[in-house]
Order: sequence, then structure tokens, then C-alpha cells
Amino acid sequence: MELSRESRFHALAQQLGHSFSGEIRIGGNYVSAVRNGDEIYISGQIPRVDNTVIVVGRVGEAVSLEQAQHGAKISTMRALAILIQQVGSLERIKKVLRINVYVQSAADFTQQSEVADGASEVLYAVLGEAGVHTRTSVGVYQLPKNASVEVDMIVVVN
Amino acid sequence: MELSRESRFHALAQQLGHSFSGEIRIGGNYVSAVRNGDEIYISGQIPRVDNTVIVVGRVGEAVSLEQAQHGAKISTMRALAILIQQVGSLERIKKVLRINVYVQSAADFTQQSEVADGASEVLYAVLGEAGVHTRTSVGVYQLPKNASVEVDMIVVVN
Amino acid sequence: MELSRESRFHALAQQLGHSFSGEIRIGGNYVSAVRNGDEIYISGQIPRVDNTVIVVGRVGEAVSLEQAQHGAKISTMRALAILIQQVGSLERIKKVLRINVYVQSAADFTQQSEVADGASEVLYAVLGEAGVHTRTSVGVYQLPKNASVEVDMIVVVN
Repeated sequence: MELSRESRFHALAQQLGHSFSGEIRIGGNYVSAVRNGDEIYISGQIPRVDNTVIVVGRVGEAVSLEQAQHGAKISTMRALAILIQQVGSLERIKKVLRINVYVQSAADFTQQSEVADGASEVLYAVLGEAGVHTRTSVGVYQLPKNASVEVDMIVVVN
Repeated sequence: MELSRESRFHALAQQLGHSFSGEIRIGGNYVSAVRNGDEIYISGQIPRVDNTVIVVGRVGEAVSLEQAQHGAKISTMRALAILIQQVGSLERIKKVLRINVYVQSAADFTQQSEVADGASEVLYAVLGEAGVHTRTSVGVYQLPKNASVEVDMIVVVN
Repeated sequence: MELSRESRFHALAQQLGHSFSGEIRIGGNYVSAVRNGDEIYISGQIPRVDNTVIVVGRVGEAVSLEQAQHGAKISTMRALAILIQQVGSLERIKKVLRINVYVQSAADFTQQSEVADGASEVLYAVLGEAGVHTRTSVGVYQLPKNASVEVDMIVVVN
């Protein structure tokens, strides 16, 4: 019997060593998610757990590819946690239209796609075929709070 | 009695010291705004007033956080000015789905979110609850014409 | 008699010296294009021809503006080739809502808009008025496989 998406989400969360069950709060005059019709936009997520950004620094220097992939996974799990809050269940996600993956990169680090694979793997592991998406990954110079990676997305819900 | 959004826009413009009333022109084979259904996409805006980009240089080095926030405000006001041109009135804006805020950053400048707060404040001040949005802010290495900040957005209109 | 968009696409491909006729493959758990309603999102494209990225390095240092514009053209042609695969004909493209143009920039290179003009020119040359779009161009620190430019887009189809 196939596991529900929530079961897979929680199994993956346990494997990553975090729960993602707390309310995700952000400051300022913006929000985590805005819906229009069947589309939900999710704000850029950094690999924050509780109040700590757990993967910080420049990828290719202070941070390895593997650490950056872990950061991409955590960021993506946060986006999924926000979607659970928004629509009640991951079963309602029909498609993932786009993810943007921003990687705080060293001058000669060119594996942004490989970092983004961390995000893509989480989406496929949790959502299956519905998690297949388009993707843009770029190497930026800095990110909020010195995060190594930031991920935003647009999903379609039933 | 509550002020109209246009009144708040013009009051804020005066406070920022610019009018934003001139026709906003761009060159090339692209335009300031394209609409599909109820969504309007706005091209990336830099803090240009008339023909001068008024906040230039790298934030965290040549440019302070406060100056960068001012740049984010000017860029966002330009986007709103374009929306007035497009749909006639800011009263027709129903939601702001997304803003992307790109900050030309020093290597160790990590307050991109605080810069983006300038954009978020303008949206909330002018549009109220309709201006609440999702947001992605990143630190880039350069921007067109050495601008310190660039803001694009997607809004939903009635 | 006006040429079809496909004819213009193939004429431009010939002029650029590449065919873009091969199946465009990407690895990982993501795809080149996802459609929702009348919108198609296209993944970020770098100037790859067959298995080689043909414009690599930092624009303003190793790479000239002209070379970067060529890279933007190639990336945009790839996006159009993907659209032909997806919907059968470029005649079905109604609008181009957004292109994002990411330019791997030198610290003092500020002509990202001029690089992006390469992408805009291709869209206008092939699609005519339907190719007029909104645009955001930024200077990033690195890109996948050391590409000089990356272009993604959202189009509306009939």
C-alpha cells in the first residue's frame, strides 16, 4: 500500500533530523504564501530550523556540495510545511510549476544544478509525479542571514 | 474617512521626494507590463527617477542599508506607477502574488530581507491588506546601470 | 507573404549556426516545461548546443557583451525549441509573460539589460508582437556549468 504524501513528508523530516511541525513565522508586511485561483506562491525559504539557519556560508568554499544539498532539502521541506498549513494536506498539490534555487556560490563553483537536485529530490520523494517541476538555479553573491541556499516555488492545487 | 490608494501613493511619492507622474519608458523589444487573465507581470524596476538611477553601488560597501531601502521604495513606487498606467487605478489591485527583490550586495552583506522591507512597506502603505505578498530577496553581484536594487512583481487585478 | 514563426525560427537557427532540432534532455527529477491552464513555464536554459555550453565565463572579463548576447540568443532559441516540442507549433504562443535573464557578471559589468536584449530580439524576430514580454535581468556570481547567461520564461498559449 502506498504511503500518503504526509507520511512520506514526516518520514523524510525524521531522516533529515528536523520536525518542521512548528508554526512557520515571518516578520514584515509579507506572508509565506499567497493563492490566486489554483496557484499558490511560496516565499523564498532558507534552511532555517526553529530560529537557526543551519546551512550558512559560501558553497564551494566554507560549505560543501553535500551540505548545500542538505540546505536545499531543508528549504524545500519548509515550503512543503507551509503548504500543509495553507491547504491542509499535501494530497491537494496537483503540480509544481516552478522552483527557483539560489545558491550562495564561490567564484568558481558551478554545480548550482547539483545543489538544486536536493530540492528536486524532496519534491519527488514526497509528491511523486505531482512533484515534477520546472527549475531555474543560479549562483548568487549573498543570501539573507548568510544562508547557503534559498528556494521559492509556485504550486497548483486541486 | 480612509484615503484612496492613489492619495496614499501620491502622499508617499511626495514624502520620498519624487513624482513618478511622467510616462515610464523602456527601450528594446520588451514592455513594462503584460497581462494574462487577472494577473499582471511587471518588469524589473530599478530606482530610476527621470533619467537618473538615484541609488547606485554595492550595498554594505558604498551604499548603506537605509539608502538601499530607499532604493527599494523608489523601485516599488515605479511598479505602482506602471500599474496606474495599465489599469487606471490602484483600487483595482486585488492581490500582490510575488515580489522579487535583487540587492547588489557586498560579499558579507546579509541583510537582503531588511532591504526588501522597504518594498514591502510601500506596498502595505499604499494598498493595505491587498498589498500583502510573497517575497524572495537575494544578493546579486551586479545590476543594470549599477543599481543597488531591482524589484519585479506579479499582481492580481479585479 | 509573411513567413511562419517556425520558418523564422529555423532561419534564425541557421544564422546562429545551430539547429536546435535534437531532443532537449535534462537530468534529475525536473522537466523542461510544465503547463497549467494556458501558461507554460520553461526551466532555465543555458547556451548549450548538443552537450557543450558554448558561451562560458564571466561577462565583462573573459566574455564580451557581444558573446554574452549570443549566449542569450542561444538560450532563448532552446526555450523556443522546447515550446515546439510541447505544443507542436510556435503559432500557438499567444504571449510571453516574463523572461528572467541571469548574467554571470564581472564586479563592474553593468550592461545586463544589453545582454538581455539578445533574448528579447530573438523573441521579437520569431514571434513578432506575441513575443513582446516583461523582463528582469540581473548580474549573478555564477551559473550552472560556468554558463555566461541563463534565461527562463513563462508563455501563454492558445
